[in-house]
Amino acid sequence: MIGGGGDLAAVRIELRSDNAAGVAPEILAAVAAADAGGAMAYGADPWTARLHERVAAVFDHDDVAVFPVVSGTAANAIGLSALTPPWGAVLCHETAHVVVNESGATSLFSSAVMRPLPGDDHGRLVPGSLVDAFATTRWGDNHQSQPAVVSMTQPTDRGTVYPLDQLGAVADVARQRGLLVHLDGARLANAIVVLGCAPADVTWRSGVDVLSLGATKNGALSTDAIVCFGAVRAEELSYRLKRAGHVASKMRFQSAQLDAYLTDGLWLRLATVANEAMATLADGLAGLDIHPLHPPTVNMGFFRVAPPVIDAWADAGVDFYRMAKDEVRLVTSFRTTPDVVAEALRRMSATA
Amino acid sequence: MIGGGGDLAAVRIELRSDNAAGVAPEILAAVAAADAGGAMAYGADPWTARLHERVAAVFDHDDVAVFPVVSGTAANAIGLSALTPPWGAVLCHETAHVVVNESGATSLFSSAVMRPLPGDDHGRLVPGSLVDAFATTRWGDNHQSQPAVVSMTQPTDRGTVYPLDQLGAVADVARQRGLLVHLDGARLANAIVVLGCAPADVTWRSGVDVLSLGATKNGALSTDAIVCFGAVRAEELSYRLKRAGHVASKMRFQSAQLDAYLTDGLWLRLATVANEAMATLADGLAGLDIHPLHPPTVNMGFFRVAPPVIDAWADAGVDFYRMAKDEVRLVTSFRTTPDVVAEALRRMSATA
Amino acid sequence: MIGGGGDLAAVRIELRSDNAAGVAPEILAAVAAADAGGAMAYGADPWTARLHERVAAVFDHDDVAVFPVVSGTAANAIGLSALTPPWGAVLCHETAHVVVNESGATSLFSSAVMRPLPGDDHGRLVPGSLVDAFATTRWGDNHQSQPAVVSMTQPTDRGTVYPLDQLGAVADVARQRGLLVHLDGARLANAIVVLGCAPADVTWRSGVDVLSLGATKNGALSTDAIVCFGAVRAEELSYRLKRAGHVASKMRFQSAQLDAYLTDGLWLRLATVANEAMATLADGLAGLDIHPLHPPTVNMGFFRVAPPVIDAWADAGVDFYRMAKDEVRLVTSFRTTPDVVAEALRRMSATA
Amino acid sequence: MIGGGGDLAAVRIELRSDNAAGVAPEILAAVAAADAGGAMAYGADPWTARLHERVAAVFDHDDVAVFPVVSGTAANAIGLSALTPPWGAVLCHETAHVVVNESGATSLFSSAVMRPLPGDDHGRLVPGSLVDAFATTRWGDNHQSQPAVVSMTQPTDRGTVYPLDQLGAVADVARQRGLLVHLDGARLANAIVVLGCAPADVTWRSGVDVLSLGATKNGALSTDAIVCFGAVRAEELSYRLKRAGHVASKMRFQSAQLDAYLTDGLWLRLATVANEAMATLADGLAGLDIHPLHPPTVNMGFFRVAPPVIDAWADAGVDFYRMAKDEVRLVTSFRTTPDVVAEALRRMSATA
Repeated sequence: MIGGGGDLAAVRIELRSDNAAGVAPEILAAVAAADAGGAMAYGADPWTARLHERVAAVFDHDDVAVFPVVSGTAANAIGLSALTPPWGAVLCHETAHVVVNESGATSLFSSAVMRPLPGDDHGRLVPGSLVDAFATTRWGDNHQSQPAVVSMTQPTDRGTVYPLDQLGAVADVARQRGLLVHLDGARLANAIVVLGCAPADVTWRSGVDVLSLGATKNGALSTDAIVCFGAVRAEELSYRLKRAGHVASKMRFQSAQLDAYLTDGLWLRLATVANEAMATLADGLAGLDIHPLHPPTVNMGFFRVAPPVIDAWADAGVDFYRMAKDEVRLVTSFRTTPDVVAEALRRMSATA
Repeated sequence: MIGGGGDLAAVRIELRSDNAAGVAPEILAAVAAADAGGAMAYGADPWTARLHERVAAVFDHDDVAVFPVVSGTAANAIGLSALTPPWGAVLCHETAHVVVNESGATSLFSSAVMRPLPGDDHGRLVPGSLVDAFATTRWGDNHQSQPAVVSMTQPTDRGTVYPLDQLGAVADVARQRGLLVHLDGARLANAIVVLGCAPADVTWRSGVDVLSLGATKNGALSTDAIVCFGAVRAEELSYRLKRAGHVASKMRFQSAQLDAYLTDGLWLRLATVANEAMATLADGLAGLDIHPLHPPTVNMGFFRVAPPVIDAWADAGVDFYRMAKDEVRLVTSFRTTPDVVAEALRRMSATA
Repeated sequence: MIGGGGDLAAVRIELRSDNAAGVAPEILAAVAAADAGGAMAYGADPWTARLHERVAAVFDHDDVAVFPVVSGTAANAIGLSALTPPWGAVLCHETAHVVVNESGATSLFSSAVMRPLPGDDHGRLVPGSLVDAFATTRWGDNHQSQPAVVSMTQPTDRGTVYPLDQLGAVADVARQRGLLVHLDGARLANAIVVLGCAPADVTWRSGVDVLSLGATKNGALSTDAIVCFGAVRAEELSYRLKRAGHVASKMRFQSAQLDAYLTDGLWLRLATVANEAMATLADGLAGLDIHPLHPPTVNMGFFRVAPPVIDAWADAGVDFYRMAKDEVRLVTSFRTTPDVVAEALRRMSATA
Repeated sequence: MIGGGGDLAAVRIELRSDNAAGVAPEILAAVAAADAGGAMAYGADPWTARLHERVAAVFDHDDVAVFPVVSGTAANAIGLSALTPPWGAVLCHETAHVVVNESGATSLFSSAVMRPLPGDDHGRLVPGSLVDAFATTRWGDNHQSQPAVVSMTQPTDRGTVYPLDQLGAVADVARQRGLLVHLDGARLANAIVVLGCAPADVTWRSGVDVLSLGATKNGALSTDAIVCFGAVRAEELSYRLKRAGHVASKMRFQSAQLDAYLTDGLWLRLATVANEAMATLADGLAGLDIHPLHPPTVNMGFFRVAPPVIDAWADAGVDFYRMAKDEVRLVTSFRTTPDVVAEALRRMSATA
């Protein structure tokens, strides 16, 4: 078993996605522990109450609302639906998951349109992305969807991280024009580890109104969450989620996962394992003269690799995604221990 | 702990909802067992493949498609969205969960309208329900939503069960006019136990096209499922679910639950415990001259009770829902063991 | 030609719908007159500006917003979409056009659900309709669509008229619970003539927030309108209408129609012709012992008629709608002059 | 009055939009003539029947369905909604009206997403636009909206015309991948005049399934139309239009306009006036060394003009749209007679 105690040489190495990894033991234990007696359904349970306190404490904010959901797509699309009118536009980087990988979910839930924007060379928006978009917007003209919210992804879909000042500067430009700010934090823990900042710094202190808090890619069983900073949208989201089928009756088992995830820094410890695995992997590949397209600072890297080498890696028992003929995406997870990395590099070196 | 080995006298008795119960040990074990190595996300994993085989075998149908989802609302609303055009009408009993308790979910996902119908005295549609509705339909008139699908609930929201011939007769009337047939089986196992029939009998052999297969109310952790008999709608549902945020990345943990649920009759054993608990409870209440509004054959009963008695029960540590001043709903679960029932009756008798 | 100067005996008599009538000459003249020079598209023209002033004056309200639209369905559904959140419920009488005849338009534009209610014996809501509905509403429960707006129809789809105190009383009950009030006035002029009230009395002074102002059934060429009392929703409606394709580029030709319609009481004069035609018709039918189901006070009546008589009428060259085996709907219009009525009665008498 | 017999020197010259022009006399006469006797509402009238025959004859196609609508936005968005599933993507040029100027109408009606593509230097798609888009599409992957329909605009929003072979080549690439083809023909007559082709050539013979047939910009009062080649989608569109509020009760007045528009080549004669006005205007501006961004072949041109000259034109009584500091859009119409053009050029020359 990968990442387990088995014979590593006998199994394929998993570098396709952090979704492919399983569950952190602390989180599985929390699920089992929540199976205690009857508990009201739909969130009226002690685990969900505790989760709210935990999020308030970890994010250092008095007035949060937290909604566990089963996927990042649900967190993003439904979170965004509370931030835009139907005639609004959601501004985001052109590589954002919300526009590329969610099959129109945001349009389904909000009826708004997406407006993908170019940014810097590393998949991030810059203040000028918005400035340019605003300049070509016909504000107040009913022929055109009106910019309502900007969505940033931290870390990005290119595996890069917004420095705090860049994140805040984009949010500032948005807020000055009356837009709200959404953060897709599917891998937020991995970014926080890199930035070494407080969770508050990368969210509400940077101007974020609503956060998609990822957990599943980093060791949870089956839950991510929408976090609102300022509970003003809590009632609206409660209805939006229910009618979307995203209010689990046994919510306590999601809340227990999230609570464990955020307790005693577990989320950051898990992310650290994943980030360090990628760093070691990238170092090893550099020794083979294989280089990343962007400096990989979290647990995801995109590498330029000669096609025959890509084929050879696959033959040698390494699993990954091929993004183009000569480009691969490698993703590590909390299960990618140093042993796994070493074995991966052994196989890759043998064939490079 | 209720239903556990603890001191029963010290805890409140849970008769509010089967959602309040926890997880069957076999299912929790299956979740833990699925945490084995890397597995492709979004359903391309061995557990999901095995689930398809399991459903095909249990329901004795060669061409099924199965989609785990996080709630019955999602199963119903998204399943129905594949059975009606936007200008269609979903016909159902006026007490159906889809029209009373899902906050417009079906309209959200399908853009169709609900058309609630009267039925017999026990919350069930009868063939005449459809005959009457069809007679007042202006077929082919674009001013009116056109009947597209009938949704029945088995067992019903009144805790009653459609006899197979009634279910089939309603479905026949529907199919003769070209409608499709949906079954909300949030508690399907409880009905199958009562009917003593094969799962196929109560579904596709009775004319059902798409089933909402409940599991959460009967011991699963966090999953129900959409089951299509005839995979013709599988591709469509795959997209509909994804853009609704209802495709879990670690789907294998849902599939493992459902697979365990359907293995070796676990679902029917769990439902039997719940049904028998309700039967014993109703017998006991009859001794107190407290009677059900409908003959309770599954794990849910509605009882006429004098208001002071209702108050006294609550004071005595029994939890339940009050539907009206003099009506309570009692629901048992796989956790409502004979000891729990005895304790409940002891408390209720003392105060009745 | 019916209603023209031709030989009446040679043509069929039109009593199917006021939609079947043509255009009032004053309105056709206004359209021709608006074809003067270039004018900005999409409402930035002098005719639309004048329409706003006209509506403000006729309805005696300082802060109105007016949006010409091509159909009553558009006026109703899009008007309502600005009065309810997606998780809201639109309460209306169970015979209302918005629920019976618009093929789900309100759900399309608002994503809300309809909640049809019973009323009095004449197709009207009563305060108790809302009181009962509110009593069975689980307020604040996200499982259930929340009452957001009540829609009344004046005159109703049964050809009856709300007395002002009944209209106001229903609106009061609604407003006390925070609901907004919509009035479907597809034939509003016909009701105003009956009530002898000011347009303000039957709308904002009775608590109406948004009005669907009908004109097409009463002599306009191709336009009805949404009228907001209090322009707070004007910006929202502007976007909602544009993205619904309901902002005509040459809006001035709609505005000119509506302006002429409301000028010098034309709308009331046209409605008076239609109402009087129905009164004469009903009197004549009473002489044949044929009676209305509801006292017909406007231009629409439903009559109980023996089936062979119905057939004979049709054979005698009278066109009408058959609602049931022994029920017909007769509708008069501004074109149903006394001569036409006399000819209709002559034919009907000969065969009754 | 512009285009009338008045004193041209006294009025502003209208070059903002062909929407600003009024109604062709033949069309106004047809509206008046349709006010003859009673006629069934909602299209069951002789004028609408005749329109179908007219469209079949003019477009040389046996199996057409025609739906008059009040705006090009309605024609585009509702027409497209019948050509894509909710999880589909609508591919179009990045300057297309459907993506830039309709405030998300297509997403409202279809729930699909827009995928704007680059094309050639003149605002047109090329086969490679689709080839590139298809190459980066993850076909059959439910994470991504699937290309379902390509929408081309003829003439384009840049005032240019697709040669027939380019139009057909793009359509071919689309059809080979199973996409359907939509044509936004808001100014179709202007393109047909330029191409000198049959209406069939530029529509179904080039692979077009559904056409938005513009009339309002070219002399109609208040109507455009959806034309389906192959009536397979007629029933679906009938419901989609009704629930969108786009079925006018007095449809005969729209049908009469369209019938007159297409009779004896009126539409082409009107378009010829407009096109020739632009040609003369462009020639005159060339003499002032003012040049178009694209060769203007229809009635719309974009010109590079020095900012002080732009200001001077406006001061001299010429109305137009300013697209950028140094770019204006000039649009002529069927009302822009040679006299009007001469006067415009006189004013522009005096100030250039």
